[in-house]
Amino acid sequence: MNPRKTVELATPALIIDVDALEKNLSLMAERHPGSKLRPHTKAHKCTEIARLQLSHSHTNFTCATPREIIGMAAAGVGSDFLLANEVLDVDRLSALAKVSENARVTIAIDSLETINAAVRAGLRDVLIDVNVGLPRCGIAPELAGQLADTARKAGMTVRGVMGYEGHLMMVSSDEKRQQRVAESMLSLKRAAQDVGGEIISAGGTGTWNMHDETGINELQAGSYALMDTHYAQLKIPFMQACFVLGTVISRSKDWLVIDVGLKSLSTDHGNPSVDDYDVLFCSDEHTTLVRKKDSGLSPANIGDKLFVKPSHLDPTMAMHSEAWITRGEKIIDCWQIDLRGW
Amino acid sequence: MNPRKTVELATPALIIDVDALEKNLSLMAERHPGSKLRPHTKAHKCTEIARLQLSHSHTNFTCATPREIIGMAAAGVGSDFLLANEVLDVDRLSALAKVSENARVTIAIDSLETINAAVRAGLRDVLIDVNVGLPRCGIAPELAGQLADTARKAGMTVRGVMGYEGHLMMVSSDEKRQQRVAESMLSLKRAAQDVGGEIISAGGTGTWNMHDETGINELQAGSYALMDTHYAQLKIPFMQACFVLGTVISRSKDWLVIDVGLKSLSTDHGNPSVDDYDVLFCSDEHTTLVRKKDSGLSPANIGDKLFVKPSHLDPTMAMHSEAWITRGEKIIDCWQIDLRGW
Repeated sequence: MNPRKTVELATPALIIDVDALEKNLSLMAERHPGSKLRPHTKAHKCTEIARLQLSHSHTNFTCATPREIIGMAAAGVGSDFLLANEVLDVDRLSALAKVSENARVTIAIDSLETINAAVRAGLRDVLIDVNVGLPRCGIAPELAGQLADTARKAGMTVRGVMGYEGHLMMVSSDEKRQQRVAESMLSLKRAAQDVGGEIISAGGTGTWNMHDETGINELQAGSYALMDTHYAQLKIPFMQACFVLGTVISRSKDWLVIDVGLKSLSTDHGNPSVDDYDVLFCSDEHTTLVRKKDSGLSPANIGDKLFVKPSHLDPTMAMHSEAWITRGEKIIDCWQIDLRGW
Repeated sequence: MNPRKTVELATPALIIDVDALEKNLSLMAERHPGSKLRPHTKAHKCTEIARLQLSHSHTNFTCATPREIIGMAAAGVGSDFLLANEVLDVDRLSALAKVSENARVTIAIDSLETINAAVRAGLRDVLIDVNVGLPRCGIAPELAGQLADTARKAGMTVRGVMGYEGHLMMVSSDEKRQQRVAESMLSLKRAAQDVGGEIISAGGTGTWNMHDETGINELQAGSYALMDTHYAQLKIPFMQACFVLGTVISRSKDWLVIDVGLKSLSTDHGNPSVDDYDVLFCSDEHTTLVRKKDSGLSPANIGDKLFVKPSHLDPTMAMHSEAWITRGEKIIDCWQIDLRGW
């Protein structure tokens, strides 16, 4: 029997509020239409959501793994894919080279080794990944031009640069964040001049409205589509569209226990949230909730369903094989999280 | 081409050192042979590991989800399964009732609602789940006898009690932990007297050697088989047998980046560990490492493989669909993590 309402779902279950998702996609597409946005598939790992992003005018996608690009291409969603990540695995890169016969595939490189791996795999299109302050991948800005020259000598087409200012996403004041993004992007722009090519790709959900004058020409946001409570702290106008549904399985005088835990959501950005409750702690299969003192509601009963808002979307999505698509209490579809794995 | 050595593996990859696993299983089976141990499958979610536990004389298993019991029974591993968790979902419980035609299936109950769900599903064998101090599931000890009476009136066989002293696993001094476990188990023993039945089930890896005089007659440990860095803090004699293999994908003057992140290991118990490196931070697909100052080694090169020790085993296992089984550098098998999901 297929569940028709959320109350009928076996739990834990990943839920997507399709109206909230649509609103988020519309709002972003209005600000960054078409190729101005290169939606990041790593946030949702779901070709059905990517298909909606395509219907909102975005044909170019950012991916974090070869698997994501291969799955997107197989689903026929998107025509220009950027692997915004360094990959040394020649077998996986060779699989991408196959995809590049039918869609444009560009990969990020930040070292001689990544150039060599791409050459061996038969990949041609690259972006120079530039470190803009986050201690992670990317070459130092002053070395970017030289790496581009090396890539061109190896026969590659250098389409431009990318840089991810991830260290600035949660700077809490809008003004300070704006200022630091501008500074960070200065180094990307300078690198872009040295590198050449037409693409300057950067940004994320937390800096979605801070790039009007930074010189970048595509934004790599992903979390905006479904959101999480971490990004919600920034008071950006995207709505929570993703939940993990749980059942109250135990109740004592002082707390409730639901069957949502560390295997169905990620707590690396802090505990999840449940309306009217404080989260005491999460364990593998459970979350213990204490009713907020100012909550007017009576506590939920054993067997009741509660909606849990994850603090970090991306790793939470990757824990589920499917998402139930809802409008109000009705379930209108079930989508596979089909881009998981590597 | 099947990989024959760890250096040939595509990453991130879950690795199990089979000799370390065997040592852990032997050590535990020596202390708690046969039915004295009811290994918890939630820690590994892998029937191949459970099969090894069976070969170490344990025929009774603890499970956290109906899926785990159904999968174990389908694999023919084990003959007596305890669902040490409250489940209200009658469809899933009915699936367990089917399993109980060929194997003994006992479920934990802690409320009238859980009794009713079990009755509707046609399940007969139960344990009374008693709260022994961890704010999670389990009925208050003083109410356990009454709940057992209610269950018997509903036609159930009450096999005894269980209680999980999870709040004591990480009490850092052995002496204090021992003392608090003894106190906590006093309430379980009293509840057991009120409840009747033969089983008194409790304990975990952190208290594996503290139950000689607590009166419990089966230990529910799981993590001991593969271990994690969190439990390793206790200096218990089980070895790290589980790793996530990563590839160095980027290197700067000050740090390395590997392709192991929040989607391939859980950080809820803190950052993972890598020999000779400090972990700067983990993000979705990456971990940034800084070489320890006192490390004599030269830093790894781009393309090198590094072994990462997870801080929390259970949710990490649940992120992977397979584990590569190694002896030294050789890969000797690949096991499915086949008990994932719910």
